[in-house]
Amino acid sequence: MPQSTPFLSDIPAAEAIAAWLDGVARLDVVELELADALGRVTAAPVWALRSSPAYDAAAMDGIAVRAADTFGATETAPRAVERHAIVDTGDALPEGCDAVVMREEVHWDDDVPEVQAAAAPWQHVRTIGEDVSATELLLPEGHRLRPVDLAAAGAAGHTALAVRRRPHVVIIPTGDEVLPLGSDPAPGQLVDTNSLMLGAQAREAGCTVECLDVLPDDPARITGALRDATARADLVIVIAGSSAGRDDYTADVIADAGTLLVHGVAVKPGHPVVLGRAEDGTPVLGAPGYPVSAALTFDIFAIPLLAALEGAAPVDRPRAHARLARRLASSLGTDDWIRVRLGRVGGRLVATPLPRGAGVLTSLVRADGLLVVPAALEGHDAGADVEVRLLRDLDAVERTIVAIGSHDPVLDLAASLLRARDPLQTLVSGSVGSLGGLVALRDGLCHFCGCHLLDPATGEYTLPWIERVLPGHEVEVIRLVHREQGLIVTAGNPLGVAGLGDLPRLRYVNRQRGAGTRVLLDHELERAGIDDAAIDGYEREEPTHLAVAAAVAAGRADTGLGVMAAARAFGLDFVPVAREPFDLVMRPGEAAVAPLLALMEEHEFRVQVEAMGGYSTEETGRRIV
Amino acid sequence: MPQSTPFLSDIPAAEAIAAWLDGVARLDVVELELADALGRVTAAPVWALRSSPAYDAAAMDGIAVRAADTFGATETAPRAVERHAIVDTGDALPEGCDAVVMREEVHWDDDVPEVQAAAAPWQHVRTIGEDVSATELLLPEGHRLRPVDLAAAGAAGHTALAVRRRPHVVIIPTGDEVLPLGSDPAPGQLVDTNSLMLGAQAREAGCTVECLDVLPDDPARITGALRDATARADLVIVIAGSSAGRDDYTADVIADAGTLLVHGVAVKPGHPVVLGRAEDGTPVLGAPGYPVSAALTFDIFAIPLLAALEGAAPVDRPRAHARLARRLASSLGTDDWIRVRLGRVGGRLVATPLPRGAGVLTSLVRADGLLVVPAALEGHDAGADVEVRLLRDLDAVERTIVAIGSHDPVLDLAASLLRARDPLQTLVSGSVGSLGGLVALRDGLCHFCGCHLLDPATGEYTLPWIERVLPGHEVEVIRLVHREQGLIVTAGNPLGVAGLGDLPRLRYVNRQRGAGTRVLLDHELERAGIDDAAIDGYEREEPTHLAVAAAVAAGRADTGLGVMAAARAFGLDFVPVAREPFDLVMRPGEAAVAPLLALMEEHEFRVQVEAMGGYSTEETGRRIV
Repeated sequence: MPQSTPFLSDIPAAEAIAAWLDGVARLDVVELELADALGRVTAAPVWALRSSPAYDAAAMDGIAVRAADTFGATETAPRAVERHAIVDTGDALPEGCDAVVMREEVHWDDDVPEVQAAAAPWQHVRTIGEDVSATELLLPEGHRLRPVDLAAAGAAGHTALAVRRRPHVVIIPTGDEVLPLGSDPAPGQLVDTNSLMLGAQAREAGCTVECLDVLPDDPARITGALRDATARADLVIVIAGSSAGRDDYTADVIADAGTLLVHGVAVKPGHPVVLGRAEDGTPVLGAPGYPVSAALTFDIFAIPLLAALEGAAPVDRPRAHARLARRLASSLGTDDWIRVRLGRVGGRLVATPLPRGAGVLTSLVRADGLLVVPAALEGHDAGADVEVRLLRDLDAVERTIVAIGSHDPVLDLAASLLRARDPLQTLVSGSVGSLGGLVALRDGLCHFCGCHLLDPATGEYTLPWIERVLPGHEVEVIRLVHREQGLIVTAGNPLGVAGLGDLPRLRYVNRQRGAGTRVLLDHELERAGIDDAAIDGYEREEPTHLAVAAAVAAGRADTGLGVMAAARAFGLDFVPVAREPFDLVMRPGEAAVAPLLALMEEHEFRVQVEAMGGYSTEETGRRIV
Repeated sequence: MPQSTPFLSDIPAAEAIAAWLDGVARLDVVELELADALGRVTAAPVWALRSSPAYDAAAMDGIAVRAADTFGATETAPRAVERHAIVDTGDALPEGCDAVVMREEVHWDDDVPEVQAAAAPWQHVRTIGEDVSATELLLPEGHRLRPVDLAAAGAAGHTALAVRRRPHVVIIPTGDEVLPLGSDPAPGQLVDTNSLMLGAQAREAGCTVECLDVLPDDPARITGALRDATARADLVIVIAGSSAGRDDYTADVIADAGTLLVHGVAVKPGHPVVLGRAEDGTPVLGAPGYPVSAALTFDIFAIPLLAALEGAAPVDRPRAHARLARRLASSLGTDDWIRVRLGRVGGRLVATPLPRGAGVLTSLVRADGLLVVPAALEGHDAGADVEVRLLRDLDAVERTIVAIGSHDPVLDLAASLLRARDPLQTLVSGSVGSLGGLVALRDGLCHFCGCHLLDPATGEYTLPWIERVLPGHEVEVIRLVHREQGLIVTAGNPLGVAGLGDLPRLRYVNRQRGAGTRVLLDHELERAGIDDAAIDGYEREEPTHLAVAAAVAAGRADTGLGVMAAARAFGLDFVPVAREPFDLVMRPGEAAVAPLLALMEEHEFRVQVEAMGGYSTEETGRRIV
């Protein structure tokens, strides 16, 4: 790669933003009527032109009086008040009056009111300037106008305000393989969803937006479109296709049309971002083509730029503290933006990391928050206190069931059915194996743990392990299913695998330590007198059934132990080895899990589970402990 | 008051909302193109129509290979890979290939690539459905569409989505004394800022809005307008003037035009709210005329209704915990919605209650959050942990300098200049007088205290009081200014006020106990041998210099002691009495105050301070202690 650009290696995000924002000019000032100024940013301080109220006003319906005339009045010795005026709330206090007596407290003797208590001077009176005094500072410069601000400015005598005009954003999507939305992509092609997303992000940020048609990978044409756009744009976004090579020529295009400031930022996803300025000074953002990268790039770089253009504080997402559900590794030297799901367990928020690929946009759709692991850290331990930027209302998070432990495809089915029945209901699963799940339950990190741990000494499942990991804890154990574990083999079983006895002659793929399936394997090997050292691949660990099946499907291994549903998902064959229970372990009466337990009682759910193959629902919902 | 309405007394807010929302029909479903669907609510679950990616795709630029062909390759024994294809990121993987080797790791020997390490099967490959699989549930019904949702729907094959149409809100302002915005109100009149505010609130909530002209207090005309509006509206808001009597006939109007459900809710401000339904079922909200009541009424009642119309979860404000800066009393039986300012002092959020009047809209403008004291509580003690609904970004709050103590207009100028230089910088002042400020500083509730407390015994300012209130505490005292205190008098000084000796023949307006100006007055009166009992109005207390000047300007008093800037603000005259220092008291090295201290060093700041009149900046920035 040619080192022709000033910052080809990844520089810290804060440095990149500072370089890009340096010297950015604020937008023009326009005078807008109050009703049109909502969401715009003040270009000058707003001072009160008149006081509000502009006169001493009655704050209640009743009579306006001179307080001194009421002094000495009691229930037994009421006083007639000759000098008075009937007033409604908001009426100006008549000359000479300094108090209001509420209607309900006035007794009328013919035309003369009587009061039974002395009025304090200035009682029930809104004095001049109670709300705001003329010349007082009402709103500072650089303030984004909210409904109450408009009303307060109106009350203080303004009918229009000087604000910054809306930023105008022009989006230029590029890529030979990128088709307009609504096209039917062939293999190797994709539809342009990034313009749609970035345009919506810009509109949400208060901009006007113009999306150009997708340009082919022709640097000259892209440079031309960029030069043309800068005349009318306050920010131009060039979206590269998903090719890393193409990010390079986006940088070249920006260098051609002006000044390239930054190419590559220490942020993941999103590191191939390009920042620069056109010849006329218009900021240009080169967004990566992977959708998660594109979305985060807007948040991290465009939002502060737009705020600088408007002279306002950038609005950040609300934050909350949460405990991390499982260990999280992160690369040194790069800010890792991790998407997390949130749930409330035992009164505290728990964050479960989602898949991290830059192409997995659904990880952002499903995320409740973003967790930034800063460049200086290699990650966090399970249970660590982390700060999460919220993508979803915390109230919605209250309806999330958090599962950590062993994962079974039946839990995916349950999550989908629960959501279909109630759009506010969510079930999230963190795969850490049965043993890790029991530890998470002990540490208050989940509502339940999916568990299928054999105790080799007794041949009993789950319960002996609970006593080991959660001694003295009261727990409830509910059976989800019985399931077949077996050897996943290539379709047609060309190697003629019959059982565990064949393992010494095969390439094996294993599960991680602490996984119930690993415990089962070790137990069965011992029973069969097979030395694990004799198994090629015994030390190769995958984290899930599906990953084991994928390894077999890819020919990376001949076989691995797993559930039949995983074999079926990849069109593989399955040699049964053992039948085992898969249980849900939880604290007694865990209310959050109730919707799942109710689902397990449904006939429809059981039919769909059995149809997956390798499952028995005979004991589904049975309380074991 | 006639008991003609079903719920004339105050019922709990939750009950009122439930009664009003009961049986509300969801809005019609419309099919919108993705680009137009931002912010709208899904009317059905969204399922993936195709997988994304729809094919196995290269995740890197490089060569696609059969992994098995690379097995055994090392740096010392590289392997040539005859069967290969050059691929860019996003390209479909050619038939038979199962891995990608990155461009950087390929060495070319003529036309044949060489690799120096074995490729793992499926390395650098995005498999079919990595993001989303066809038939998978992408978004539930009742989901408000965000930019990422639109992109994910597009990637999964959608071009349009079924969503609820926007709610249409019609606003009917009423009141004989209410003038259109831009009018010049006479005493007893006010301009219609409520329509502006409620309309903006509705637009922020995603509604289309129509504001009618202000109607006079004529029930027949208002009933007519209401009946007419219900045909096209999803919600009609009738705004009463600020008269309590008028709330009653809003209820009658709604009863006339349909069904009155609720009149009076146990919420303060806002209790005279009216909820009902027109004959055709359209919900009608009768909003109180006081602006804080009107704004909160929208939040508490209209927001859940609009969510119900759209079939979505109502979005609540983010929340945070804070320490209460001072004791807060609240009435039993009513939810009290208290506006608070927030700042971070000593690592903890501190909430300072703002004025509570329903007419003080600036309390809502200046609020960082809302604190609800529920009906069952009589209030909170100072220092209590309270939950606050945030009206402002907490990041912005982090940059807030919290001043509690005496207030001087120079602090307003400083706040305005700090904000103009840096839109993220805020300076908030709580006026509790110098003594109250020292107590707040002692209790860790502010960053600095504005202080000008004379010690009559020694004639010394501030320091003796610090020893009394903060014994054993280390503090720093920095001089802000010297200022003239004097008698604020009507323009032209028609009563010929020459000094404090004239007070016994004048109507006086005083400052509250604990205010430095009050201490100064008492000291000067004693020196002059004047008995305070001889002064008419000595017991009438106002909380600020500006309030004193306002009272003089309004003719409620002939004079009061205050600073020259306050007199100038109201075009009044000023008779100097004493020159005094105004100091900032803080903990040593208080980092939060640094921007203010830096500003005090600026020439421009000092010029502007001197230009206000009555100030000397000779010692500005001098460290006293």
